[in-house]
Amino acid sequence: MLSLAFGLADPALFPREELAAATAAVMADDAPAALNYGPSFAGLTDQVLGRLRAQGVEAEPENILVGYGSSQILALLPEVFVDRGDTVIIEGPSFMGAVRRFAMSGANLVTVPTDGEGMDVDALEVTLRELAARGVRPKFIYTIPTFHNPSGVTMPLARRQRLVALAAEHQVLVVEDDAYGELRFRGDDLPTLAALDAEGWVMRVCTYSKILAPGVRMGWAYARPEIIERLNMFKHEGGSGPFLTRVIARYAAEGRLDAHIAQLRDHYRQKCDLMLDAIGREFPAEVQAGRPDGGFFVWCRLPQGMRATALAERAKDEGVAFLPGVNCYANGQGEDAIRLAFSFQSAEKIQDGIARIGRAMRNM
Amino acid sequence: MLSLAFGLADPALFPREELAAATAAVMADDAPAALNYGPSFAGLTDQVLGRLRAQGVEAEPENILVGYGSSQILALLPEVFVDRGDTVIIEGPSFMGAVRRFAMSGANLVTVPTDGEGMDVDALEVTLRELAARGVRPKFIYTIPTFHNPSGVTMPLARRQRLVALAAEHQVLVVEDDAYGELRFRGDDLPTLAALDAEGWVMRVCTYSKILAPGVRMGWAYARPEIIERLNMFKHEGGSGPFLTRVIARYAAEGRLDAHIAQLRDHYRQKCDLMLDAIGREFPAEVQAGRPDGGFFVWCRLPQGMRATALAERAKDEGVAFLPGVNCYANGQGEDAIRLAFSFQSAEKIQDGIARIGRAMRNM
Repeated sequence: MLSLAFGLADPALFPREELAAATAAVMADDAPAALNYGPSFAGLTDQVLGRLRAQGVEAEPENILVGYGSSQILALLPEVFVDRGDTVIIEGPSFMGAVRRFAMSGANLVTVPTDGEGMDVDALEVTLRELAARGVRPKFIYTIPTFHNPSGVTMPLARRQRLVALAAEHQVLVVEDDAYGELRFRGDDLPTLAALDAEGWVMRVCTYSKILAPGVRMGWAYARPEIIERLNMFKHEGGSGPFLTRVIARYAAEGRLDAHIAQLRDHYRQKCDLMLDAIGREFPAEVQAGRPDGGFFVWCRLPQGMRATALAERAKDEGVAFLPGVNCYANGQGEDAIRLAFSFQSAEKIQDGIARIGRAMRNM
Repeated sequence: MLSLAFGLADPALFPREELAAATAAVMADDAPAALNYGPSFAGLTDQVLGRLRAQGVEAEPENILVGYGSSQILALLPEVFVDRGDTVIIEGPSFMGAVRRFAMSGANLVTVPTDGEGMDVDALEVTLRELAARGVRPKFIYTIPTFHNPSGVTMPLARRQRLVALAAEHQVLVVEDDAYGELRFRGDDLPTLAALDAEGWVMRVCTYSKILAPGVRMGWAYARPEIIERLNMFKHEGGSGPFLTRVIARYAAEGRLDAHIAQLRDHYRQKCDLMLDAIGREFPAEVQAGRPDGGFFVWCRLPQGMRATALAERAKDEGVAFLPGVNCYANGQGEDAIRLAFSFQSAEKIQDGIARIGRAMRNM
């Protein structure tokens, strides 16, 4: 089965030799600290602070939590914030890996729709007002404003400003999941929600999974110190490994991570364009494919009457897999769309996969 | 300040070059799996199963949880088992790093005393009967039967058998924390509680911290599959890192970990004997020092009337630190004893530290 389903990084680009070299360097000159008990390496936190500073956010170590992947941090959120019946606002569609965790905690999920500019902030405002009228203050708003998973969409500046202002007005935390933000391959960077936030209502969650390698399981969060402190209380194992945090910091130092990211951007741009070209050739003209400026995914609106789950069945017969839109919603929507990952497969397989899906579409 | 306080491994023995080589090997031939998303490496679980088998326990992968240090696993226990007001049985003294986590969950801690053979199983039996009479079934019994932290004591076979039988009779889980069990430097191995348990009432928690390096943050648990499954549900981040688990498994393979453990045993035997010799020379004759067969600690009973916390103050003036016994009890006991770690400091510093403590004792 040729899979375009998952948001996997391209293993061809894993910096395997550099990670081996970083480990050797840490073992040569920092082993007593790297191999003993201790907190997460302060130097890694410093690097995170540097990345934040480059994005216009001045922060201190007490604003940062280093975790075993952003998935750990996202899973801690409901532990810290949600009691059964509390309300959490999510986007539709969204990253269900996180949303399922929120649901497991008994959160009442309220889905705000998105469009070609991300979360519909008018709809969000209505939702917040309606909830406020019923005396409900949501525990947080979960959003992926940049190179959205699954929709690929990036929220423009004006909307970002309005989202941050609404959060402050209603005193609701915005959780900005920015797994893909550094993988921009077109256009100019936009300010992160955290950079637009003057009052501490934005928490930012980032990961090394997309810019380095998922297998190292390392991510970080930026938030008000009280929030970081509470997350730390629920992070049973304390820090995230003196060894692991030092290896990653050593790898990332001296511009190596930035150089790697530059290489990834080129690579993913090529793959994205290749997928878009193939879609143009192979899919019926009625399919509306998004054109992302970064990230891993092309989101396609299906022609009227074509159901994503039925298409997935046909595609399976053609030997190809993708993510039906229904798998990206908490409220049963999504039969009108599919998510295609260009990140993982070779150029040849991307083209082959799109051709097969196109065949499945035309056979419906 | 010369510290004999903490149960740190000796950094001089960290296999730094071997860990660098293991990382290089994994990066050379297994990077696509090690650096991508995935569960903990099955090969590491296989090694754990091999160690269990060598101890007389036949187990399957579904009996094993690999975690970020045994401290993560011990901290998951109250999450899984304890609601506020539930009873947990601990030993006095015990490893407070774990006990504090149990207390934070709102557990009602019942301390069973220990003697020179570990937990007093007569007292345990009385406690279990009294609790049963009140309709209380404890959530678990936390014990360190081998090279106890802090007392250094090892529970003899007959008591182990009785403890396991009592657990089965009362249907209470026994959590066997065996952080030090592989570091026996005198005498013969005893069956672990898990090896004596025919009915699944023993959970075993182990760590690489003492036999490899704490900084890698890796540990494992053995238990009934239902228990492992529930622990996994509460382990937010899923596995414990495709990269980290492969590096450790690669390091440990081909007998390297066993050879390293053999080296550690020699090393810690020498340090323990050196500390015991120094204690014999430097401490008043009324001090009763334990003679451990393994592990990291010598536990000393102080002369009548000498309080551990007062001694710690005097010792501080002499520039030396140790752990007062009161820091090892949940019920306020322990003014009559101190814990001395021989694991961490050089031979010279151990002798110097003991001489200083001896001086502090004589000055009281």
